Amino acid sequence: MSPAEPTRPVTVAVLGGGTVGTQVARLLNDSDTDLHIRMGTSLKLTKVAVRDLTKPRDIDASFLTDDAMAVATSGADIVVELIGGIEPAKSLILAAIAAGSSIVTANKALLASDGASLYAAAEAEGVDIFFEASVAGAIPLVRVLQESLAGDHITKVMGIVNGTTNYILTRMDEDGASFADALAEAQSLGYAEADPTADVEGHDAASKAAILAELAFHTHVTREDVYCEGITTISQVDIRAAKTMGCVIKLLAIAERKADDSGVIVRVHPTMVPKEHPLASVREAFNAIFVEAEAAGELMFYGRGAGGAPTASAVLGDVVVAARNRLTGSVGWGESADVQYPVLPISEALTCYYVNIDVIDRPGALASIAQAFSESGVSIQVVRQDGHGDRASLIVRTHRSTDGALQATVNRLRKLSTVKAVVGVMRVEGEAGA
Amino acid sequence: MSPAEPTRPVTVAVLGGGTVGTQVARLLNDSDTDLHIRMGTSLKLTKVAVRDLTKPRDIDASFLTDDAMAVATSGADIVVELIGGIEPAKSLILAAIAAGSSIVTANKALLASDGASLYAAAEAEGVDIFFEASVAGAIPLVRVLQESLAGDHITKVMGIVNGTTNYILTRMDEDGASFADALAEAQSLGYAEADPTADVEGHDAASKAAILAELAFHTHVTREDVYCEGITTISQVDIRAAKTMGCVIKLLAIAERKADDSGVIVRVHPTMVPKEHPLASVREAFNAIFVEAEAAGELMFYGRGAGGAPTASAVLGDVVVAARNRLTGSVGWGESADVQYPVLPISEALTCYYVNIDVIDRPGALASIAQAFSESGVSIQVVRQDGHGDRASLIVRTHRSTDGALQATVNRLRKLSTVKAVVGVMRVEGEAGA
Repeated sequence: MSPAEPTRPVTVAVLGGGTVGTQVARLLNDSDTDLHIRMGTSLKLTKVAVRDLTKPRDIDASFLTDDAMAVATSGADIVVELIGGIEPAKSLILAAIAAGSSIVTANKALLASDGASLYAAAEAEGVDIFFEASVAGAIPLVRVLQESLAGDHITKVMGIVNGTTNYILTRMDEDGASFADALAEAQSLGYAEADPTADVEGHDAASKAAILAELAFHTHVTREDVYCEGITTISQVDIRAAKTMGCVIKLLAIAERKADDSGVIVRVHPTMVPKEHPLASVREAFNAIFVEAEAAGELMFYGRGAGGAPTASAVLGDVVVAARNRLTGSVGWGESADVQYPVLPISEALTCYYVNIDVIDRPGALASIAQAFSESGVSIQVVRQDGHGDRASLIVRTHRSTDGALQATVNRLRKLSTVKAVVGVMRVEGEAGA
Repeated sequence: MSPAEPTRPVTVAVLGGGTVGTQVARLLNDSDTDLHIRMGTSLKLTKVAVRDLTKPRDIDASFLTDDAMAVATSGADIVVELIGGIEPAKSLILAAIAAGSSIVTANKALLASDGASLYAAAEAEGVDIFFEASVAGAIPLVRVLQESLAGDHITKVMGIVNGTTNYILTRMDEDGASFADALAEAQSLGYAEADPTADVEGHDAASKAAILAELAFHTHVTREDVYCEGITTISQVDIRAAKTMGCVIKLLAIAERKADDSGVIVRVHPTMVPKEHPLASVREAFNAIFVEAEAAGELMFYGRGAGGAPTASAVLGDVVVAARNRLTGSVGWGESADVQYPVLPISEALTCYYVNIDVIDRPGALASIAQAFSESGVSIQVVRQDGHGDRASLIVRTHRSTDGALQATVNRLRKLSTVKAVVGVMRVEGEAGA
């Protein structure tokens, strides 16, 4: 499409008038010269559906309506869904697809539970469904996984995909704050909600992990397939242990394909990451996704994972590509689980453990502990004793083994007479040659 | 396109049988199940044009020919150009476009000198020209700038785009190596060529800077528009001064739009970057590009910028998207300089300077030096005196000012009777609130 051949305006309807919806409406109504020239046309905002018409908003009242279904089925070229949650968002999107509209959504919860049915509906209708904003905000990861790496084989994706928990962990690491104090600070800054459960228990990261896994491995993965541990039990004992080992603790969403192609494993848990690893230097509320691909090698994508403006930037990028497709009569890459690896449990994952053990310091203690590891087939990489007598502790880092074998080892350790307590267990990722 | 509707194979011809060409041919001939299922068809390698048929290669001899023009004009769906340099690459690409083929190229030198004519030829013919591999190897930056950020406004792009110089600077910073020793090590590892001029003088980075600027600002920028300083004069004095200031030295390619929209400035030079900045932790031969956009905020893309496999991954990603467009009868976004900001000289750039001055330590020395800054309208952020008497030196970091004013200040300093020598001058980027 050449700038010399202007075409009809592309109509855009928005469902949801919250922070992101308001920003998207503003950007669409902006007299954005670059964009209009590049598009060879203009994007025309038609309506914004909101729940409460009486609430003051930064959107011209003439655009507002509280009839979301009427907006969804208005036949706009593009319907942008920014309501969030499963219903009514799902019914509205399906109705908009049936009306022939292309969809742009930021709804991670919906995609992680019902993505497959939405993708299939869009494909059947021949419309686009784009969702760049659903994972890692402004970081253009979805298009990268769908298109740029289309000729490569992704083996692993590891991401810091929740800004709230990364902010809390950064404060705990850099300021020595307790989890409770760091959470309170995150709440006072607006990084964490009054009820922080979805963030600190890892549920938000788990939804994003499901979407990332689907994109990376072309396999249907839902939230229920994702192993999930949050950060609520992380203490300064863990933070200090991580420092001793040259690591920082990050809440990672990890999706990986088994080397023998037998399946994929998707998990979210606190993870020790060596300070030299690119993910270790991702601080505060930033997000980053580290990708390993067979030919491309190691890649990382870094940026703001949340917030009105960054999310709106991702939404608008999708709107522009969808608009271009409307004008040229084509559709984008789409997402279909055309490979469909089995989704395996975390016990199949290969990882390393750090284990911190309070021991009774007597002859043979180390031998009995070393035997517990070897009986589970787990090889020790480093062992380090701190203190003596009543206050002796062993810090062990293992070589790579299955998570099931590592978990079995920890259970075995807990039964040993030489072990007073297993005071810390955490997975380690990102080590060179581990 | 649904996997249930297989279509004709898409034919791909390759110009160039070097490292990348061999990898691309191998990946195309790989029985790549994922890719073929996702494409709904297969990619079929037709011919690989090489200069010397007698040279042993890892490509089946039946594909090889030394008639590059015959391959370019063979009417393949996609012609991949991996010869490099201006000619014959340019004539071959133009001939392939005229024959109706879509183009995938990794040729940064050609795009930085004649990109505009190639983009125009492709647009006139209605074919794709993709060049993801031309900047930062496997890092999918081109598609991100063209599509994902299409609804945003980019204000600045700063990149480590040359792996050789980043490897040398990493060795100088971490091991205290001299430039000569670090270069020799890079050469022995294959990171630097026997004649390292194009890398260490910044020419390679300058070509990439031109391409980045064109993508970010939709403005024709050629290599000649790019201000360029290499790293050959960097010494351990500079490295230590950077450490004193909490910085590392990186060779950055910087493209920025003036805040008043009066133009863009594109430059390559050694730069002090604060250790907290994401670019500071990009080590060894890795590349990374830091992008600032109005809505998205700060983004960074990290990965391997060179090497056969990473470059082949980027080429193949382009081939897959181009193939899909051939099957659906559409073309990709394309690149046209439809905004065309003026390209301004570096003297218009706003930046900070670090200046290291050997002074005669007598009363009034600091006052005279401070006056030289203020007479040029440059404000001092930090000044620090090291040593006394004959060996006194002042390290000054300025606030942000135009490069022209900063350069004028340095010239003024050199004429002061209290100044023995200006022993170090370097631009500083990436400071918060400078």
